[in-house]
Amino acid sequence: MFYTELNAKIDYSRDNLRWNAWGAYGQDFFRVAQMQEILGFLSDEFKVTDIRKTPPVALEEITLPKSTLSAVQIRELGKISGTKHFSTERRERIFHSAGRSYYDVLRLSFDSLKHFVDGVIYPSKESEISKILEYCSKNNITVIPFGGGSSVVGGLEVVKGKGQKSVLSLDTTRMDSLVHLDSESHLATVQAGIYGPKLEKLLNDQGFTLGHFPQSFEYSTLGGWIAARSAGQQSNRYGKIEEILTCLKVITPTGTVQTLREPASSTGPDLNQIFAGSEGLLGVISEATIKVHKLPETRKYFGIVFPNFKSGVNFIKDVNHREIPTSMIRLSDKNETRLYQTLGTLGKKMTPGRWIKNLIQAQVLKFKSLGEEKCVILLGLDGSREDVSQNFSKIKKIIGNHGGLYAGTHLGEQWIHSRYNMPFLRNHVMENGIGVDTMETSTTYDRVLNLHKEGISALEKSIPGSIAMCHISHSYHEGACLYYTIIFPMDEKKPADQWFKMKRTVSETFFQNGAPISHHHGVGLDHKAWYEKATSKPALLGLRAFKKEIDKKEILNPGKVFH
Amino acid sequence: MFYTELNAKIDYSRDNLRWNAWGAYGQDFFRVAQMQEILGFLSDEFKVTDIRKTPPVALEEITLPKSTLSAVQIRELGKISGTKHFSTERRERIFHSAGRSYYDVLRLSFDSLKHFVDGVIYPSKESEISKILEYCSKNNITVIPFGGGSSVVGGLEVVKGKGQKSVLSLDTTRMDSLVHLDSESHLATVQAGIYGPKLEKLLNDQGFTLGHFPQSFEYSTLGGWIAARSAGQQSNRYGKIEEILTCLKVITPTGTVQTLREPASSTGPDLNQIFAGSEGLLGVISEATIKVHKLPETRKYFGIVFPNFKSGVNFIKDVNHREIPTSMIRLSDKNETRLYQTLGTLGKKMTPGRWIKNLIQAQVLKFKSLGEEKCVILLGLDGSREDVSQNFSKIKKIIGNHGGLYAGTHLGEQWIHSRYNMPFLRNHVMENGIGVDTMETSTTYDRVLNLHKEGISALEKSIPGSIAMCHISHSYHEGACLYYTIIFPMDEKKPADQWFKMKRTVSETFFQNGAPISHHHGVGLDHKAWYEKATSKPALLGLRAFKKEIDKKEILNPGKVFH
Repeated sequence: MFYTELNAKIDYSRDNLRWNAWGAYGQDFFRVAQMQEILGFLSDEFKVTDIRKTPPVALEEITLPKSTLSAVQIRELGKISGTKHFSTERRERIFHSAGRSYYDVLRLSFDSLKHFVDGVIYPSKESEISKILEYCSKNNITVIPFGGGSSVVGGLEVVKGKGQKSVLSLDTTRMDSLVHLDSESHLATVQAGIYGPKLEKLLNDQGFTLGHFPQSFEYSTLGGWIAARSAGQQSNRYGKIEEILTCLKVITPTGTVQTLREPASSTGPDLNQIFAGSEGLLGVISEATIKVHKLPETRKYFGIVFPNFKSGVNFIKDVNHREIPTSMIRLSDKNETRLYQTLGTLGKKMTPGRWIKNLIQAQVLKFKSLGEEKCVILLGLDGSREDVSQNFSKIKKIIGNHGGLYAGTHLGEQWIHSRYNMPFLRNHVMENGIGVDTMETSTTYDRVLNLHKEGISALEKSIPGSIAMCHISHSYHEGACLYYTIIFPMDEKKPADQWFKMKRTVSETFFQNGAPISHHHGVGLDHKAWYEKATSKPALLGLRAFKKEIDKKEILNPGKVFH
Repeated sequence: MFYTELNAKIDYSRDNLRWNAWGAYGQDFFRVAQMQEILGFLSDEFKVTDIRKTPPVALEEITLPKSTLSAVQIRELGKISGTKHFSTERRERIFHSAGRSYYDVLRLSFDSLKHFVDGVIYPSKESEISKILEYCSKNNITVIPFGGGSSVVGGLEVVKGKGQKSVLSLDTTRMDSLVHLDSESHLATVQAGIYGPKLEKLLNDQGFTLGHFPQSFEYSTLGGWIAARSAGQQSNRYGKIEEILTCLKVITPTGTVQTLREPASSTGPDLNQIFAGSEGLLGVISEATIKVHKLPETRKYFGIVFPNFKSGVNFIKDVNHREIPTSMIRLSDKNETRLYQTLGTLGKKMTPGRWIKNLIQAQVLKFKSLGEEKCVILLGLDGSREDVSQNFSKIKKIIGNHGGLYAGTHLGEQWIHSRYNMPFLRNHVMENGIGVDTMETSTTYDRVLNLHKEGISALEKSIPGSIAMCHISHSYHEGACLYYTIIFPMDEKKPADQWFKMKRTVSETFFQNGAPISHHHGVGLDHKAWYEKATSKPALLGLRAFKKEIDKKEILNPGKVFH
């Protein structure tokens, strides 16, 4: 067994998941002492001495309006999946009324979220989803499909459709079975409400892996991945989820859509690629058949240091154009390299920083000649021993061409073990007056360096005193994904305004550079304005017409993406 | 330079292209003596002695109705691209009124084609396309976008939209420039009316290749490939055209759609994958940006003989699941293997058969133990010397596991040199009372053997006395394309009925097996009924609504695919 870093112990019962921050209770590995060091370091970076704590309000303090569902509606909806699986309780409603973006957590923490779902339903099968959509169409109730609830783009924002008085959250997580594993075709048919670790565990038990490990892996679902076109950290090898997808089943208000179980075809527009990325606007994804792979025999994850970002980008381009198969090539720019390097020296037991610590300790002398502009690449190979060895040797041969220095496997292994921890760090810093957000896009190689520079500059300008950094997280034949992180002292008086300004500035920069508003986070509500600006009008109107035809009362997740 | 087998000498002037059969005049390499031998052999196979010649009628004999375009319309349309580039001439109208399916050639040969375009226009730029669509929307004129005209699924069938009195063919082939080659991102931006050889030559001259070589390569265009989701013979390496596509420009009656130049994104449904496969129903594809690759350093194409189809399929599955990069794996079933083997002994200079001839001469003794069920695989590798050598060695290691026998590179090289010749053979046999048609689909590995069997059986039953055979032409992680060929004595009294029966029987077999009606030929008119049966109704209605929104008067290629 290979992907054994699975955290299969998470208790997903709704009471055990944080209603206002990332993850489950008891899964956080950061300790108080570590956090003090980190917070101290960040304050120094910001050159601000009076960062105030920003503790979240308690669940009871959230200003929650009464559910607008009538007694009759509550009774009727309760009949569909059973009263045990329908709720209008405070915690359930609040938990389902936001995703996990910075803005979401901010509003939950400060009691400034304005709109809430009026009820939550947990169907157990497709016929129940059909009934829910039918009932809600007839009764003008907005339906927001809900998977793990990890959207960071306002995909779960409670927006009512025209003439709709109530909003229902349709939680898919009871539908989480592995329906069929076809070990001949290497395909798994799975219910879409399944969380990442359970899915991966079920496959691992039979010698397979999905190989899809987005940052949100532990708290997101298959259906959510498809709805938002997610990318796993090993996407260089396994592809984005829309490429992993072979066919799917979607329950719409006008019937079920089942796409063909086929490796490829030339039968009109690709329906999979219409429903992938539809973010709940076109139906509820109930099941998907996805490509699985035999667990790789071995892996090799290692670090390489390059003199600057440009040489790192050239190396990535070179590896891709030579078609050397990799699982991951992750290039941190100088700011991110420096930050992780410093974090690595803080809190001896703080795992997410430790990957870089060893870099410092063991390689620092060698790196000296690499200077202040140096950038680290983490490169991962998975496969048979023969393939990994051959590919490693091909890569080692070209590192020098780009001025790089091989930095050993320790960094890579550390990264693998701590890769799902970052959102927990955000939980902590946000309680302590510090904001963290991420934005991501993609572009072709000829534009990567310029867009990198403009993105960093936009971030720094939008929040003076912030730390802005970037890494390349996924790369392709023709280009790569740029993933930005900004860390900043929160304006605790107007935190939303501060965030909006940042979001607008960066989004506009992406747009001006002809880059998409998202590479793998999705559009939701937060990116909608830029998505609409970037999408040719006939296509946008065409998509709306498609939705209107399939969801005549327009009850499904209205006001997002192209609606 | 690598892909030097390009036929760059083809004269595409409309007078030089056969109006009723495949290809250009003077490009046919079959000789009379060879044809006599082939025809004799086929007659023996059919056990029919009195196959009658079925010579085609002359151009002048075609019953062509008068163009319904009014004098005013002719004048107005003539103004858009200039009178030199607008025509209502007999030859032009007939040439643009059909594709190159068996049924098309049949009707052109027998003067039984019923519907013709009323005029042909050759725009030179996008603004002219916009004007044409605007004019035709206003004047209720159907527009059928035309690339190479090589559709084999009735994609060019002249069908008038509701309330439309005339039909205009919009020929894109004047728009055939390489707009930009981005050698950093390995992307080419190209006008969509370009023919395969010109495009490949322009790229080769700068050290690149597109790697897209469909059977129709010499007589089809980039825009046509995208519109019908074509697959090249090296698709294992380069992908189907919809995967090669990075972004495109489509001129629609309601404006221009330009998708983003991005390697990947998560911004709603994938518009590229809506327009790819839209077969002219949603707009005229005017430009595309496509992935190009450095010309490979070397290639190795070789034959392998397997004891039966099943072992060949298992080998293909194994190679794909081991993720050994190949350019092509082409497995002929026993019928196809036997036919090519025999053809190889006929007409010494007949190149398409020669690839198998050497197999017979050099390996026959070795093969003896392989018996009557034996099947040949042609496997192609392209890449750096190091990669090709490593991959060849990996493949050689597993051939034996599946009972296969390596049969040398001669077969592969012969195949490369004769790969575009088969449609010319059809030209000849169809004049001699013999029909040939092909049908293709795809399925997952768990269903390949059964579908293969059922497809062959359906073909044989549909036309008693026919030769039915199949090969796997493209393979994937989860399955493969099955490509069937049927050769039969033509029922010269009711040839269309004979063909319809065959088409219906096989299409129904694909449908009953849950397999798509096409893997890379498209839907057009011929496959529409089965496409509609196989497509979930909400999706079908959604696509229609999309079209209706983007093409309000529904002038674009009406009555095809989902319309």
